[in-house]
Amino acid sequence: MEIPKDHPRRKSLETRERLAELSREGIVSITGLIAHGRGEAFDYLLGEKTVKEAAVAEEVAVAYLLEAKNPVISVNGNVAALCAQEIVRLAKSLPAKIEVNLFHRSNERVEKVCAYLERAGATHVLGRKPDARLEGISSDRALCTREGIYTADVVLVPLEDGDRAEALVRAGKVVIAIDLNPLSRTSRTATISIVDEVTRAISNMQQFVPKLKDNQLARKELILNFDNKRNLREIARAICRYLDSQFQ
Amino acid sequence: MEIPKDHPRRKSLETRERLAELSREGIVSITGLIAHGRGEAFDYLLGEKTVKEAAVAEEVAVAYLLEAKNPVISVNGNVAALCAQEIVRLAKSLPAKIEVNLFHRSNERVEKVCAYLERAGATHVLGRKPDARLEGISSDRALCTREGIYTADVVLVPLEDGDRAEALVRAGKVVIAIDLNPLSRTSRTATISIVDEVTRAISNMQQFVPKLKDNQLARKELILNFDNKRNLREIARAICRYLDSQFQ
Repeated sequence: MEIPKDHPRRKSLETRERLAELSREGIVSITGLIAHGRGEAFDYLLGEKTVKEAAVAEEVAVAYLLEAKNPVISVNGNVAALCAQEIVRLAKSLPAKIEVNLFHRSNERVEKVCAYLERAGATHVLGRKPDARLEGISSDRALCTREGIYTADVVLVPLEDGDRAEALVRAGKVVIAIDLNPLSRTSRTATISIVDEVTRAISNMQQFVPKLKDNQLARKELILNFDNKRNLREIARAICRYLDSQFQ
Repeated sequence: MEIPKDHPRRKSLETRERLAELSREGIVSITGLIAHGRGEAFDYLLGEKTVKEAAVAEEVAVAYLLEAKNPVISVNGNVAALCAQEIVRLAKSLPAKIEVNLFHRSNERVEKVCAYLERAGATHVLGRKPDARLEGISSDRALCTREGIYTADVVLVPLEDGDRAEALVRAGKVVIAIDLNPLSRTSRTATISIVDEVTRAISNMQQFVPKLKDNQLARKELILNFDNKRNLREIARAICRYLDSQFQ
């Protein structure tokens, strides 16, 4: 479909068309499309920009990822479709491993998402051959690799479901969520909840890497001073301010 | 996919699966799935219930529909998928005509949606053979019928896009929107904006029909006392109260 250049929601419409296309290719799942819509709505209520509380969480997340022994970025179909290149770039600069984990898993879809990430420049994508299970979830989402998520101490889970976020926290990992819904189980469960659109979030995180890479003191301070629950509450207030401002 | 009976979001997951199924059948469009997700997010922020301001708008909407000379309910793929039976029942009891109008229009999809409504009990579905165009929108969404939307004085547009809602208002019609986003162009443009999940909204409207059918005085009073903008602002406040309550 042709989107008029002057359409007020052009960027959002283009992203939708891309997701639709990647859903026809089997990279994005049908319910992934619905999940994207939920994200759009919350992003809309944040004014479609990174609120300052999200930027704080993004910086703290980078501090945790740089402090980690085995940091892993978990990637699903939507994440690959929305920001494969940004993910690959962040993984290289930290560095962190990339592991594909799908809610609606089939070997065929795993292969497609892995190949998509490789076309975006990833050189070592985990997930094709899971050899471990995360405890406490029954579905195939539990499948993971020993090299990656199973032994990870810090896991970045963009667009994660609540069950898996909880299982990762129970497994003793530091869980960094990227989720536009500040009330979701994922946001409430994660160690650090980044309430921001995933492409913006990953790009912002990238910006913080050089500054924090050689500064362990700064990293420790960021981690020490961060209060995730307070941060989420402030984001809920930002949504209210936006709503109010629209009816003046 | 099997959804566990005790899953906290069972109803919502079942609806998603149904939409996914109807998208494979060609009744729901790919971008319709994303639109459903947006609705889910806003419904979540309303506590997944009809707030009292929505109930007021629903009663006023029924008053308008009963006062109308040629009331028409415009139906798209998502509306048919979510509540075909409720739409058919409301159309019969008012009575009002049903016309299928699709954002992503093809004759094949129009036929599928019409047939789906007929299987749900509709006896006279307009839209297969449009013979008029609504002014001010360029795409095929402009297509409509003289018997239906083109000559309608009151149009109920559940899950409508902003361009078409604006075009209908400019054409001098009373436009009743059902849209979970109180800030959308559709909600801001419509004469009456019902901010409620579409299945609940249509069912609630049905409840008001017997009470208002033989009471013109009550209808006139409802119409006279309704302030759509104030009602929308109150709904934005309800969302804020819900957000606040989640962080106590």
